[in-house]
Amino acid sequence: MTVTPPQLKITDSEFRARCDLLLAFIQKSDLGGVVLFDRDYLLYYTGFAFIPTERPMAFVMSKSGERALFVPRLEVEHAQANALIDRVDHYLEYPATPHPMEKLAAMLADMGISGKIGADHDGYPWIFGYRGASLSQVTGAEIVPVATFIEDQMMVKSPAEIALLRESCHWANLAHTLLQRYTVVGATETEVSQRASDEANRAMLDSIGPIYRAQNAFFSGASAGYRGQIGRNAAIPHALANNMVFQPGDVLVTGATAPVWGYVSELERTMIIGKPSDEQRRFFDHMVALQDTAFAAIQPGQPCASVDHAVRAYYEQHNLWDYWKHHVGHCIGLRYHEGPFLDLGDNTIIQPGMVFTVEPGLYVPGLGGFRHSDTVVVTDTGIELLTYYPRDLESLTLPA
Amino acid sequence: MTVTPPQLKITDSEFRARCDLLLAFIQKSDLGGVVLFDRDYLLYYTGFAFIPTERPMAFVMSKSGERALFVPRLEVEHAQANALIDRVDHYLEYPATPHPMEKLAAMLADMGISGKIGADHDGYPWIFGYRGASLSQVTGAEIVPVATFIEDQMMVKSPAEIALLRESCHWANLAHTLLQRYTVVGATETEVSQRASDEANRAMLDSIGPIYRAQNAFFSGASAGYRGQIGRNAAIPHALANNMVFQPGDVLVTGATAPVWGYVSELERTMIIGKPSDEQRRFFDHMVALQDTAFAAIQPGQPCASVDHAVRAYYEQHNLWDYWKHHVGHCIGLRYHEGPFLDLGDNTIIQPGMVFTVEPGLYVPGLGGFRHSDTVVVTDTGIELLTYYPRDLESLTLPA
Repeated sequence: MTVTPPQLKITDSEFRARCDLLLAFIQKSDLGGVVLFDRDYLLYYTGFAFIPTERPMAFVMSKSGERALFVPRLEVEHAQANALIDRVDHYLEYPATPHPMEKLAAMLADMGISGKIGADHDGYPWIFGYRGASLSQVTGAEIVPVATFIEDQMMVKSPAEIALLRESCHWANLAHTLLQRYTVVGATETEVSQRASDEANRAMLDSIGPIYRAQNAFFSGASAGYRGQIGRNAAIPHALANNMVFQPGDVLVTGATAPVWGYVSELERTMIIGKPSDEQRRFFDHMVALQDTAFAAIQPGQPCASVDHAVRAYYEQHNLWDYWKHHVGHCIGLRYHEGPFLDLGDNTIIQPGMVFTVEPGLYVPGLGGFRHSDTVVVTDTGIELLTYYPRDLESLTLPA
Repeated sequence: MTVTPPQLKITDSEFRARCDLLLAFIQKSDLGGVVLFDRDYLLYYTGFAFIPTERPMAFVMSKSGERALFVPRLEVEHAQANALIDRVDHYLEYPATPHPMEKLAAMLADMGISGKIGADHDGYPWIFGYRGASLSQVTGAEIVPVATFIEDQMMVKSPAEIALLRESCHWANLAHTLLQRYTVVGATETEVSQRASDEANRAMLDSIGPIYRAQNAFFSGASAGYRGQIGRNAAIPHALANNMVFQPGDVLVTGATAPVWGYVSELERTMIIGKPSDEQRRFFDHMVALQDTAFAAIQPGQPCASVDHAVRAYYEQHNLWDYWKHHVGHCIGLRYHEGPFLDLGDNTIIQPGMVFTVEPGLYVPGLGGFRHSDTVVVTDTGIELLTYYPRDLESLTLPA
């Protein structure tokens, strides 16, 4: 028998409450129903996790509140096991005759969904070689985009979601601690990342037990690594990994996370191998000051843009524009990036329950990249850091 | 200095030839140009690898053959390093004012792209909380879907692509050999998968050297594992991992691959722990016979559907319909699934150079799943197997 730690689940009643808000939106917007294809939207409303391929799947809700999944034969048992789903329709295979979209149209008709239909996409996206008609073509209905409503609903996290994000930070912290411990001159990026990630992941699985589910499209377990952001390469953010060997003087930018029931946090640190040079120390200190500036600027009731304004004022004041490459941060949850964004162009009002990454960076050609990223939750008065790894240079200096 | 093994690259001249075919299509279709947002399409035409986020990127080609990348500030140096690109335009950040789509529209106008514009999507897909106007809205142009042309172009592999797929099979074979060796009663799925994947990946990196690039959206290194398809759970294809402990009598379905410059192969085997029962042997033998039936049916000049017909005739003849869940296989390349499909509904003609997975399966409730998957290339007269792992029950029976 397996026992589920009670804090580590989105309950069925929370999934129902999410669906109820979508239903109210359907009724208010005078839609016949809603069809969602996006895997994260399905996970958000039903807890049904799957890997998108050329086989279309959809979550459907009618204006009377009936909740249905449309799946290939391959996923029928998986879909039927979902307690929140009133109805599962399936097609045999993709491609098939009739085309799955024809079967989806018949299902919508059978559920009484007509008139204007809300959808995240006008048909299943053409991924993995999938080809098919649009939803408007097969139904003849007017398709109303609804992603804006859904994104707005997802942007404020519930206590249960914040608990999962907190849990994610816990295991990311372990992975990062091991990453720092195993990073030594002469070792390769890959061996260090593998060892740290493997050990952290096994500890997480053994701690949470067999009920653990990653349910994330991008991460299957706890992990920590370098993403190729080492030394000279560190000035290129999001560089792809290339198995470099650690050397004295390297400036390292790390990344660690762990998916728990879909939710992921973000922890990144700048570390330096050997005694930091004056120049390295100067950029490190500016980077920490930029992050402190952002922490202080995140205030409920203020627009997201205000945080980027405050941080950019620091770049301006200290003549750091040459080293700027991106905005302050983004929300995080079921996706490792999601809106709103801590960016000049985003006037969304910051609300308690939003969870942001805070990660202003400095990218210095020939020297390296300098960036910490912390995951923070907005409170009634400011922020609480969910990540808790040391941020100071002394803690992040490795022996040469 | 690093030396590149000559066989392990798509050359610039091959990328140019791909672009030339797209250009001919643009001119034949009387388009002003083409805008592509899909990361795999960008990789295919330019070799530019990136991870899609809320920051839109696009490859643009005008009817005069100018090749351009549209990227955020973050990716400018990366884009400029690409030898095939004539022009790089960038926006500062997403979201931003003006919106990136406005900047893309201005770039298209500046490149002389107007009238009908070809595109894979009518605007950047709304992923990771991205929100934006469609391409037709910002340009006022008629948007012509072009994914069908591109998918048709990608479906026949060149000798260089087949060489990369062959290389992928090489490292998948190593990972699978180690997976089988380390799978013992009492061990957990995770520890065995980690050890096999880690060792195979490090061997691959050390063999190919620092020039190695994964460039795949789903796999970052060689890997082998179980995807939760163990014992009773094996009857649910594509089940998510859950760290089971191996027991005598388990029927295991494995999976192994390795990404090389974006290209991935697929190797899957059914293994049994301990002496197979008569029932296990019966289903194993039927599964191998189903796969042999498919191998024999793949003939250039025949429709893909003919392979599924031949395999389904075997299910029919041997009364196996209760255990059927999916079609015979799919093409594979830069995506781990892609079209055409070995399916009744796909009448695409099989051509030399197409690379398919062949993986008919039997899913027996309470007993397990039975599926091998091999990656094969179509020749002038039939197929050649690119995967070369043993397929027989004796080789795949593990000590209890």
